[in-house]
Amino acid sequence: MRRTVIGVMGAGENATPRAVVRARQLGALIAAEGWVLLTGGRGTGVMDAASRGARDAGGLVVGVLPGTDGAEASEAVDVVLVTGLGSARNNVNVLSSDVVIACGSLEAGTLSEVALALKAGKPVVVLTEDDEGLSFLQRTGRGRLRAAGDPEEAVALARSALAQSSSR
Amino acid sequence: MRRTVIGVMGAGENATPRAVVRARQLGALIAAEGWVLLTGGRGTGVMDAASRGARDAGGLVVGVLPGTDGAEASEAVDVVLVTGLGSARNNVNVLSSDVVIACGSLEAGTLSEVALALKAGKPVVVLTEDDEGLSFLQRTGRGRLRAAGDPEEAVALARSALAQSSSR
Amino acid sequence: MRRTVIGVMGAGENATPRAVVRARQLGALIAAEGWVLLTGGRGTGVMDAASRGARDAGGLVVGVLPGTDGAEASEAVDVVLVTGLGSARNNVNVLSSDVVIACGSLEAGTLSEVALALKAGKPVVVLTEDDEGLSFLQRTGRGRLRAAGDPEEAVALARSALAQSSSR
Amino acid sequence: MRRTVIGVMGAGENATPRAVVRARQLGALIAAEGWVLLTGGRGTGVMDAASRGARDAGGLVVGVLPGTDGAEASEAVDVVLVTGLGSARNNVNVLSSDVVIACGSLEAGTLSEVALALKAGKPVVVLTEDDEGLSFLQRTGRGRLRAAGDPEEAVALARSALAQSSSR
Repeated sequence: MRRTVIGVMGAGENATPRAVVRARQLGALIAAEGWVLLTGGRGTGVMDAASRGARDAGGLVVGVLPGTDGAEASEAVDVVLVTGLGSARNNVNVLSSDVVIACGSLEAGTLSEVALALKAGKPVVVLTEDDEGLSFLQRTGRGRLRAAGDPEEAVALARSALAQSSSR
Repeated sequence: MRRTVIGVMGAGENATPRAVVRARQLGALIAAEGWVLLTGGRGTGVMDAASRGARDAGGLVVGVLPGTDGAEASEAVDVVLVTGLGSARNNVNVLSSDVVIACGSLEAGTLSEVALALKAGKPVVVLTEDDEGLSFLQRTGRGRLRAAGDPEEAVALARSALAQSSSR
Repeated sequence: MRRTVIGVMGAGENATPRAVVRARQLGALIAAEGWVLLTGGRGTGVMDAASRGARDAGGLVVGVLPGTDGAEASEAVDVVLVTGLGSARNNVNVLSSDVVIACGSLEAGTLSEVALALKAGKPVVVLTEDDEGLSFLQRTGRGRLRAAGDPEEAVALARSALAQSSSR
Repeated sequence: MRRTVIGVMGAGENATPRAVVRARQLGALIAAEGWVLLTGGRGTGVMDAASRGARDAGGLVVGVLPGTDGAEASEAVDVVLVTGLGSARNNVNVLSSDVVIACGSLEAGTLSEVALALKAGKPVVVLTEDDEGLSFLQRTGRGRLRAAGDPEEAVALARSALAQSSSR
């Protein structure tokens, strides 16, 4: 019964147009796989775009908000988790995701989620143009962090990480 | 798009047979309303019974686990949130629920969720045979806590609380 | 090296004058024992009064705030923990206290802390005039919750709970 | 009354001998300034060494543990905060620190604390030999992250960050 949950993490207000386009593609591809999309829930940037992509492709979207105000949620989120935890909810996001995909620039919030995911032993896929950041994180991740060149590759890497987890 | 979420809270291992039967009915009735069921996620007691009731009635079930081990989840949960927060996740449960329904005996964990829900200003419905506890909590809740005699009444009270919230 | 920590929990803005007087006495007595006082940190009600009592008696005061704004802290707090967790910080308060003392009326926030403390297996002392609430909580606490008639008795009960814990 | 709190973050079991030596010096220097030292609380690596350094210099040490078992704490910690939050406690660490100092290699846990501190707008000082990581983080931190060459410089940078905060 339990469904596979894929987290897509990325910038809110500061997301680049390219990151937004890619997040929307990621959401659509995740929905097409039959996976649940989990995001940080807000109606902006990568979170919002991924949610719209998944919703428009018929997927289920769970948004895990930092604050106590459910009205912050993207209108494309089906199930809103209101945590009131602030950035401590970032750890809930990564623990609840079978694979964590970071999309776009590696700003502080996204970086904390990548780091917490590595700390928790989660598979992480990074889709970014920040080569220095990526190189550093791959070293930190010791083989659990994979770089993707586009959304299709990110989803393929997630699929392979899931296959590895389930064969263990 | 955003779906109504109803939380059902109650004992795990120490749940009485009567509370388990009622939780199952609650789950089924919640699913029949088209609401999402949210529970504490574990595969035991009221959480498990409500989840099974909702799942068998075709509903969507979200389980919010206290620990880091997703394997603790009830097999009737569709979307598992793994918080790693311990009992601090009780506050996530109540903030994420549009209405909180407490089912069965008012033991420490359930009591904390009722209290946190009242603190957060959430409507609370209590379905219990503990008259002393109920009387005390109604005083604490100052009109936001309602007593139900059976699962049907609990769901009717939830429906009326939702109507009041949306008309504000 | 590790110091004994005693948590004093109670109402903020709605605290009664009597609860405030008793909280101040509790703070002073806790400091006189050489224990660290832990409160919910804010500069109001029971939290503030207990902090002032302990500070004026030369004790160390730790305040664990719910929000992200350190300026909310009582000026009598020495070490401010800023959690940003909202009411989820109530569980941090009780886990960090060797004994939890609830002072005054058992409103929602205080009640959640008593319930979380019982859930965590902590010794709890309640100093209240709410006889119905007390009777209910003693049943819930199954022997781990003791009633005190005044601050001196509350501290004596805390001392005896500490002695029992350390002899185990 | 409220005391300045400086957080020192770094690896536990995997800390290098050099990071341990530096952490001990940091703890001693922080105590000598009259600041409270805050660490992740455990009795290993950078946390333990900084705590010992501060304690031996007569300082006050607060340890914020991830788990529920107070016995994990370093014996040099005076006040143990038991959060039960897992890695979500990393956000409590940074919100509670007036300045965050990262010491040693930038592994996943430490990296998450640096990222959460930047997200929260805290001043961050990094004392590391990881030049690639440092360069990446300085870019992410946009002027709020400073690099130190040794413990003395780290404390001088913390002092200057505190002066800037208080003059605002």
